[in-house]
Amino acid sequence: MKRLRIQLLLTGNELMIGDIIDSNSAMIAQQLKDLGIEVQRKVTVADDLSYLVDEITHMSQQADILIINGGLGPTVDDLTAQALAQASNTQLVENIHALVHLTTWCDKRGVALSHPNLKQAMLPENCHVIANPVGSAVGFTTRFQHCDIYCTPGVPHELKRMMTQEIMPHIAQKLTSDHYYQVIRLQVFGYGESSIQKLIDKEFKNWSENIELGFRAAMPFLEVKLAIKSNSDEKMLTEYHNKIRSLLGEHVLANIKNEPQTLAEHVLTLLKKQSLKITTAESCTGGLIASLLTNIAGSSQVFEAGFVTYSNQMKTAMIDVSPSTLDHHGAVSEAVVIEMAQGALKKSNADVAIAVSGIAGPDGGSAEKPVGSVWIAWGENNEIKTQYFCIKGSRKYFQTMVANRALDLIRRVLIKSDECPNYIKSIH
Amino acid sequence: MKRLRIQLLLTGNELMIGDIIDSNSAMIAQQLKDLGIEVQRKVTVADDLSYLVDEITHMSQQADILIINGGLGPTVDDLTAQALAQASNTQLVENIHALVHLTTWCDKRGVALSHPNLKQAMLPENCHVIANPVGSAVGFTTRFQHCDIYCTPGVPHELKRMMTQEIMPHIAQKLTSDHYYQVIRLQVFGYGESSIQKLIDKEFKNWSENIELGFRAAMPFLEVKLAIKSNSDEKMLTEYHNKIRSLLGEHVLANIKNEPQTLAEHVLTLLKKQSLKITTAESCTGGLIASLLTNIAGSSQVFEAGFVTYSNQMKTAMIDVSPSTLDHHGAVSEAVVIEMAQGALKKSNADVAIAVSGIAGPDGGSAEKPVGSVWIAWGENNEIKTQYFCIKGSRKYFQTMVANRALDLIRRVLIKSDECPNYIKSIH
Repeated sequence: MKRLRIQLLLTGNELMIGDIIDSNSAMIAQQLKDLGIEVQRKVTVADDLSYLVDEITHMSQQADILIINGGLGPTVDDLTAQALAQASNTQLVENIHALVHLTTWCDKRGVALSHPNLKQAMLPENCHVIANPVGSAVGFTTRFQHCDIYCTPGVPHELKRMMTQEIMPHIAQKLTSDHYYQVIRLQVFGYGESSIQKLIDKEFKNWSENIELGFRAAMPFLEVKLAIKSNSDEKMLTEYHNKIRSLLGEHVLANIKNEPQTLAEHVLTLLKKQSLKITTAESCTGGLIASLLTNIAGSSQVFEAGFVTYSNQMKTAMIDVSPSTLDHHGAVSEAVVIEMAQGALKKSNADVAIAVSGIAGPDGGSAEKPVGSVWIAWGENNEIKTQYFCIKGSRKYFQTMVANRALDLIRRVLIKSDECPNYIKSIH
Repeated sequence: MKRLRIQLLLTGNELMIGDIIDSNSAMIAQQLKDLGIEVQRKVTVADDLSYLVDEITHMSQQADILIINGGLGPTVDDLTAQALAQASNTQLVENIHALVHLTTWCDKRGVALSHPNLKQAMLPENCHVIANPVGSAVGFTTRFQHCDIYCTPGVPHELKRMMTQEIMPHIAQKLTSDHYYQVIRLQVFGYGESSIQKLIDKEFKNWSENIELGFRAAMPFLEVKLAIKSNSDEKMLTEYHNKIRSLLGEHVLANIKNEPQTLAEHVLTLLKKQSLKITTAESCTGGLIASLLTNIAGSSQVFEAGFVTYSNQMKTAMIDVSPSTLDHHGAVSEAVVIEMAQGALKKSNADVAIAVSGIAGPDGGSAEKPVGSVWIAWGENNEIKTQYFCIKGSRKYFQTMVANRALDLIRRVLIKSDECPNYIKSIH
């Protein structure tokens, strides 16, 4: 099988001077990866006509597919169409499809078609327009030196839509009949790459060479990928998928189709379905858990109150934690987080609570309770569960992990799972 | 003056398959920009020896300076040293400086020097080692085809330190004697690029061509850059700097030297200095302000309690907002945020408070109070100030802007400024 050679050319002054961090090429690469194709080479240059002409000339000799990103706008520094015309010895002509798109686009917005906009309709002769329903700049494609060239807009959501809807199907068609790729991606919480690899090595004694296994860290999640390269392996993929899912149990949150949901979104969806309300009592995470829940639209249906009780005194004043419990056990203790959860439930009339108390650091640790120590309490009033963790890392890492473990633990209550999560099992 | 031609070569499979978004090249570009130099071209390839050799050969013919990033690690897919040796027709030899660094590095950590680590001491003959005090991989530099080549580690904080401490001074030396660049960067809150440009156009009738003015959006801040290209303009730079600072007043938070501080950090520093405590009463930001304050180390000195009061009932239960005020004025009202601030101060014994109530959207708006409406109250108990804003944009943008404006308003109280910020002035 001949491998498709794909190259990317990115253009933009703002990319060269570091004002923008390029996330477009990662997005393109991820989409191509789902077809089993890798990008061979990526070049970024400023909006300079001679640079662009040189790169297009050179890259179209080397590659089967060249995706050019950026430079489709209406201003003078948008040079992609001009550079492509020059490199391929053709000329810019007014493209009727692009013109119709621009006219409709401006009409809908009640604005006049300006002269700079008209420039966006001047495209290389013989190119084909690629629809852009969410932006003014159409994409376009042409063939030059046996290379298929796709010109795409720099605006990320316009690019994403164009890649998914238009360009990926084109590229998929170009794959030879013996190229086949099917992928399943799982969103996993609670396993790291090495621990999941160990588990798989133990359970799958003879992993088939026909099933490609891959991991991708997407904090706080791990994405697990299973892929096949032949349609004759579809049955095996289903078997492996089922086996992995039963192996990982409730550590798998979802099969990822498009944008994965956050843990707070998973929890919110479950709460809404069950008409339950949640409250939070936070010490070491200082409002982060409340914030993760309330930055989701519609959270007011399930969240009424959160208590950020940083000091001991406030734990007592706000949510009735007994001073003697604080005295006897210290703020970072099982007894205190239980009373925090109970107090928050009582004060808020919520159905379920999350309470956390810990030492985020860098200061405040002791030999007995080092930096990273945290107690989490979670559940309903008549069934509050607790767990101790020691999470080493930066303050930000600690807070993120505490918040997400707490959300995962309450998720497990909501789905009525009695499975012990790996991050608890591995402590014992 | 001959312009230095600088190119970047990035290597890494994880960059090509989209698992990592490259932020290193933006960081390098920003550092170079502070010397008045721009990157001409940037190429990214996978960890493949023949690709790397081809690119190094080609780029070193085109550029005066080539910065190679990545591929210095101990594993088999780290190929930079080998590729550079092959491209420049030299060989890999054990470099004594690199070996000493590795030995010391491992000694300090009490680990044995492993065989893979030893690979990191095999460098091209005649190259010079660049110190890396924060990582195991040293950098190295050599000259080939009139091009100075710098090989740097892919780990961002190691790269950053090496660029700042070692490579930037090298490059600065290479600049011809008539190349001169001095830059001042200001951290500004409360002005957008176009509003600041308008202000400057109005106040500086004849902006000197010798002073370069630049802007960079760094949400929620705007960075304003002033630069000169000749040491004879130093006096003028000082004058412009002083004039801009007096024009922008307390909208300037700091001169940026290294990492700019967040607004929460600025507030925290002021609170500590004045031995004051802060509390938060949040509706529409749902804990975000508390979280921004408490993700900073040492925040427990100034922050004891935060109240996330999402529902009306909880505003009453937690911080004594009167039900009749809620009835008469609605939750998003001046009267309610005043009572929220007063209640939070009373319940927490803090010295200053921030209270916010608004409509984050996408739902919940009305003709009278559209999505984006927000009332903020801030200050001490005997002097609570209030302000209404309507902030249009996504839920995330709204919450971020509300949180940061609230923090800026309390900052202005703490520095005893009576200046009216632009984001309030522009409403009237």
